[in-house]
Amino acid sequence: MTDRVELVRAFLASHRLAGWLSWRPDELVLQIAHLPYWGLSVLLFLADGERILFTPELDPVDTVPDGVHVVRYPWGRMDCADPFAVLAERIDEELWRRKLNKSQIGTLRQQCRSSLPVMAAEQPVFPQEKIEALIAGTAHYAEASEAFVDLYLRKTPAEIERIRLANSVARIGLDAWKSALKPGITEAHAAALAEGAVHRLTGVNGIHIARAWAMVQSGPNTVDAGRFNRSTGRRFEEGDLVLIEMATCVNGYWSDLTRTATVGRVSAEAGDVLSAVASAQQAALRLVAPGVTAHDVDAAARGVLEHAGFGAFFTHATGHHVGFRYHDPGFAISPDSNIPLQEGMIVTIEPGAYVPTLLCGARLEDNVAVTAVGFDVLSGDSSSEDIND
Amino acid sequence: MTDRVELVRAFLASHRLAGWLSWRPDELVLQIAHLPYWGLSVLLFLADGERILFTPELDPVDTVPDGVHVVRYPWGRMDCADPFAVLAERIDEELWRRKLNKSQIGTLRQQCRSSLPVMAAEQPVFPQEKIEALIAGTAHYAEASEAFVDLYLRKTPAEIERIRLANSVARIGLDAWKSALKPGITEAHAAALAEGAVHRLTGVNGIHIARAWAMVQSGPNTVDAGRFNRSTGRRFEEGDLVLIEMATCVNGYWSDLTRTATVGRVSAEAGDVLSAVASAQQAALRLVAPGVTAHDVDAAARGVLEHAGFGAFFTHATGHHVGFRYHDPGFAISPDSNIPLQEGMIVTIEPGAYVPTLLCGARLEDNVAVTAVGFDVLSGDSSSEDIND
Repeated sequence: MTDRVELVRAFLASHRLAGWLSWRPDELVLQIAHLPYWGLSVLLFLADGERILFTPELDPVDTVPDGVHVVRYPWGRMDCADPFAVLAERIDEELWRRKLNKSQIGTLRQQCRSSLPVMAAEQPVFPQEKIEALIAGTAHYAEASEAFVDLYLRKTPAEIERIRLANSVARIGLDAWKSALKPGITEAHAAALAEGAVHRLTGVNGIHIARAWAMVQSGPNTVDAGRFNRSTGRRFEEGDLVLIEMATCVNGYWSDLTRTATVGRVSAEAGDVLSAVASAQQAALRLVAPGVTAHDVDAAARGVLEHAGFGAFFTHATGHHVGFRYHDPGFAISPDSNIPLQEGMIVTIEPGAYVPTLLCGARLEDNVAVTAVGFDVLSGDSSSEDIND
Repeated sequence: MTDRVELVRAFLASHRLAGWLSWRPDELVLQIAHLPYWGLSVLLFLADGERILFTPELDPVDTVPDGVHVVRYPWGRMDCADPFAVLAERIDEELWRRKLNKSQIGTLRQQCRSSLPVMAAEQPVFPQEKIEALIAGTAHYAEASEAFVDLYLRKTPAEIERIRLANSVARIGLDAWKSALKPGITEAHAAALAEGAVHRLTGVNGIHIARAWAMVQSGPNTVDAGRFNRSTGRRFEEGDLVLIEMATCVNGYWSDLTRTATVGRVSAEAGDVLSAVASAQQAALRLVAPGVTAHDVDAAARGVLEHAGFGAFFTHATGHHVGFRYHDPGFAISPDSNIPLQEGMIVTIEPGAYVPTLLCGARLEDNVAVTAVGFDVLSGDSSSEDIND
């Protein structure tokens, strides 16, 4: 796993594709390490390694990496009839110029989710029907979803460092949350502090986008944390377990972390739940290495919780791939995944137990890279010291 | 414009539809005042006013309004093969039970944007192909996009009050931003303070979701504010214009506000830009009333900026509909919209001027309801006193 350009080229060669056309924010981050602003940028990645980014005139391009050729198309002019038609023309022109207009170009038309563009208060605006029209009218496009999704699974060393950075930034948000764990503070207030601590790191040490989405649940609300994570106005009380689930995006790379901590002294039962979850997480983490199956990692966590009597309350999988999105595509770390881990994969390890009869729940989640010989906890303790506002 | 249930029933009757099937978060807010958590809820609104909400088992339902019938479908169980298939069965069952399986049901299959569900770090997860499969396999579905989009345009009195609340919450965020306008504070830090002030109001006075997305630009960065809004690590300096663009969601209802303010004493030229924009906004605002065309409102703002010599730098429309989304569908307040305003519409009035030669830009944006006789500025000064954390 060396350079991403070489990986995409190898993928195109092995599928006999002359190029790849993509538009979802996370596909662009994967191929050229660039998170688009409006979600209206289209990338044409050619078999010889050339990368052409079609962006609307409204998009900032100062964050586009060197070596990517930028082609503008009109957007936001009050006199422009149909920017999508112009975009289709521009793409055709580039294909014709290279005599690729009759070659096969790969696309990923249908896909369950996408990460967000920078402009995140609305869903990415590239409408599926515009994509269908684009693909129907021009060169020969081929759908090759599964093969492309494979490219998400193993990260290059450079990407692992960028995802480590997202985790280091996230941990600063978690520190802010932790300092708010006092009786009387609301869940939403603690979540806002975590998000704010992340957001304000924008501009520090090469970070041009830092954003977090934090959700905090406390006391009896933690019972729901396996179903949904939602901050309410509930005020923390002495004896609460408090859980935070946080998605963090730094320059287009994502971290997905969960912590559960205590306010003052908790009941023996709540303490048992939390320590069983911690043991389950350690058991799964320690097993992560190339060749170990996802099933076995899941079984390690599940076994500990079953032994502690909480097996029935661990209602979800142990983990998933992460890095280009909050949830990357690919196999889950779950009982039915008999797929071996490989070096360069990054997965979450996040066992939890949500016990209605005890009115409490807990989950602990870290992001772990598979190394040549074992694992590297990207959200571990040693990495947040050099980021300071 | 009275009750939303009656409006949707009248719409269904006039289009001879037995019901309406929708799934986008803002369509659910429009029809039943409910913002789904995961973005996986489907609403069936029947001609007799019955409303059936199909939600995944993982969704919280404590925020579903009374009178809406909730049907659960499995999601998140590790042993469930295809939740979409179960969902399609459940919908069919409800249609069969009412002998509506051969009747026409309306849908809005293709639509440029959607507001986000509560779980906002990823795009709404309902994949278009699953919707296509759902619609292909069951009752008779009819596409009726334009007619349905009409339902967004006029808000009921109850909805206007909810959008006013979103504006009142937003203004508390803007106050936090304003208090950060001091030399040395970064754009991202000021944006984070605005977002945090909104977020922490969750749980206060019937507010169960309060979220903002703020983007702050300062000094020369304000020149870009007509193309994109992005917070960087730039620190405010004496003499800066500082612009904030903020989307705010309260319980599923949206506000869209922009302010431009000063740090210390600004140059005469920057002062001229800001005061011309303020005059343009006042000119447009004062004109808002039933029967006045969008064109004329736009022309009022544009005329003031042209007269001040900044016409060429007002590069966008004067406004758009707002309330169910950050940007509601419908006609723009722009030179080519010869459509009269009607009572109950809510539009933004947001002239701006971005002057590269002066290294500064400004925009002022308020949300304005059209009343029986004129206008009501929902983001005005009098309404934020009763919300306090």
